[in-house]
Amino acid sequence: MNIAVVKPTRRKLDLRNGRVDLSHGAGGRAMGQLIEDIFHTAFDNDWLRAGNDQSAFTVPAGRMVMTTDGYVVSPLFFPGGNIGSLAVHGTINDVAMSGAKPLYLSASFIIEEGFPLADLAKIADTMGAASREAGVPIITGDTKVVERGKADGVFISTAGVGILPEGIDMRSNAARSGDCVIVSGSIGDHGVAVMSKRENLEFDTDILSDSAALHTLTAAMVAVGGTSIRLMRDPTRGGIAATLNEIAHQSSVGFRIDEEKIPLKPEVAAACEFLGLDPLNVANEGKLVAVVAPEAADAVLAAMLAHPLGQEAALIGHVVEDPHCFVQMETSFGGGRIVDWLSGEQLPRIC
Amino acid sequence: MNIAVVKPTRRKLDLRNGRVDLSHGAGGRAMGQLIEDIFHTAFDNDWLRAGNDQSAFTVPAGRMVMTTDGYVVSPLFFPGGNIGSLAVHGTINDVAMSGAKPLYLSASFIIEEGFPLADLAKIADTMGAASREAGVPIITGDTKVVERGKADGVFISTAGVGILPEGIDMRSNAARSGDCVIVSGSIGDHGVAVMSKRENLEFDTDILSDSAALHTLTAAMVAVGGTSIRLMRDPTRGGIAATLNEIAHQSSVGFRIDEEKIPLKPEVAAACEFLGLDPLNVANEGKLVAVVAPEAADAVLAAMLAHPLGQEAALIGHVVEDPHCFVQMETSFGGGRIVDWLSGEQLPRIC
Repeated sequence: MNIAVVKPTRRKLDLRNGRVDLSHGAGGRAMGQLIEDIFHTAFDNDWLRAGNDQSAFTVPAGRMVMTTDGYVVSPLFFPGGNIGSLAVHGTINDVAMSGAKPLYLSASFIIEEGFPLADLAKIADTMGAASREAGVPIITGDTKVVERGKADGVFISTAGVGILPEGIDMRSNAARSGDCVIVSGSIGDHGVAVMSKRENLEFDTDILSDSAALHTLTAAMVAVGGTSIRLMRDPTRGGIAATLNEIAHQSSVGFRIDEEKIPLKPEVAAACEFLGLDPLNVANEGKLVAVVAPEAADAVLAAMLAHPLGQEAALIGHVVEDPHCFVQMETSFGGGRIVDWLSGEQLPRIC
Repeated sequence: MNIAVVKPTRRKLDLRNGRVDLSHGAGGRAMGQLIEDIFHTAFDNDWLRAGNDQSAFTVPAGRMVMTTDGYVVSPLFFPGGNIGSLAVHGTINDVAMSGAKPLYLSASFIIEEGFPLADLAKIADTMGAASREAGVPIITGDTKVVERGKADGVFISTAGVGILPEGIDMRSNAARSGDCVIVSGSIGDHGVAVMSKRENLEFDTDILSDSAALHTLTAAMVAVGGTSIRLMRDPTRGGIAATLNEIAHQSSVGFRIDEEKIPLKPEVAAACEFLGLDPLNVANEGKLVAVVAPEAADAVLAAMLAHPLGQEAALIGHVVEDPHCFVQMETSFGGGRIVDWLSGEQLPRIC
């Protein structure tokens, strides 16, 4: 056998006009090329270049956290980001909400046959940039391809690990009557930005998604608030309404919040009115809600206001005793209402 | 407002006839119910019950590994397992192949609207059982739902973390000329079991997937072989052919293997002939390939033969010097051939 004949020609991927095909997920040479030319290039670190099915790192003794999220946002590209930046920011934030310092990410791609390589490269590049900016590398990954019509472009699942500062142990059941509720900035931006590009909804707006990695903000908060921060949450799917209702049930408390104090951009308010949505139900991807012991609330709020991602932070209400675990809101008109979480499918595929 | 009116009735999910709808992914009450009734019940541990977006655990100082894989196997249920057991075993194995002890898993579900709740519960139950049997809990997860026709039943991405024994540092470029190649058992079982249930291919066979968690086997190997085990790999997609070619390129060596020594069930050989497949290209989910320094090969092989998952382990060949990085096989007929990896889409969605 003439071995020169079977030696493969290594052609570059056609990143301009090429499309993902089933061979890119089959474990052979085509998959190796896709991974090398798109993902290794975009994520650019020695862990991936080592080419193992797992990556190693050193940790000090202590407590770590692990989290995962799947991303199915539609459309894949939206004002202020795309599914790639979302998959990096969202999982960093889930680590950060425990008070932990995010260390490393993994990324699993499920790609529909026929997806443009140019779009995949753009998404990977955005992920790589978001990961580098946050200082949290993507150290391991996986790629699967399914037949045309069996997925919707690309889905990404990221997992993240981080390390907890000594003594920090936030829990979803830690809210106590009298605690303060602080939100880090204006609500509803992400959901409105994505909805504005939905095929059947398209409307004009300048709203950008707030998608951002919040771990430096949480670190600044923990540095001044320590264990006085009862818990933090990023109000993504279901918005701030779902987040507060969840905490209420998990901590067996109620909330009383003040509508006037909740930061809300006028354009987001207008868009929500147009869409028939309550901004409290609309997803955020670069905001957090913190429940803080009253004695530490001023210091934590000041630390947030001093951080670029917390400049519009506001104390929006308090934890109250309530056997019904209701989230009650004093409205701008002086009335009151119960803020329920959505039971329906108002905003599918928002993240 | 009569608050009793807005208080929700908590109905159980209809696990017999119900179907996943978009509300189950919307971040509200329906999603909470799906997670509680199906996933928390099936995975059953305190991390999940705590209801945080991330879970914490304690680690000693040292080196850890992280890995992820997406699972898109079709059909979802196959002889010997389903996508749930596969998602647990596959990710445990990717951790274990580094020599690490797997500690924890995360699981991200992307579910198609209309998917039967009964099937989802069955998959989750199988995952929970596989995780408990392996002693590697699923401590955090996520659920997304996409519209009918935008996915294919359910996709699962799992990530895993583990801890490396002191001094163990396997690398894909560590194979050296003279090293021994050991496979832990018969090849091709998983791929043939899945193919036997493909809609357009269905054929009669008693072959079960070999899907299994290999971490106790790898621990037994590392205990006797230590750093003499250059590297281990689980030959999944692309089969043993892809695995050996990858190692060859990463280590800049060649392989010479002996077809007669590769364990292969007669039924698998027959099925591969029927399907026009080379068993070397067919996926395994409960087998490993180890490259071992010659002086330790006998001891490592003996440890494998003494383990329930290594009873058919065999030394199948050696690493050789080869500037072309070829995998050469001496065939049963006395001839020789180059074992190439697949460049095409022969076996999509096998895992």
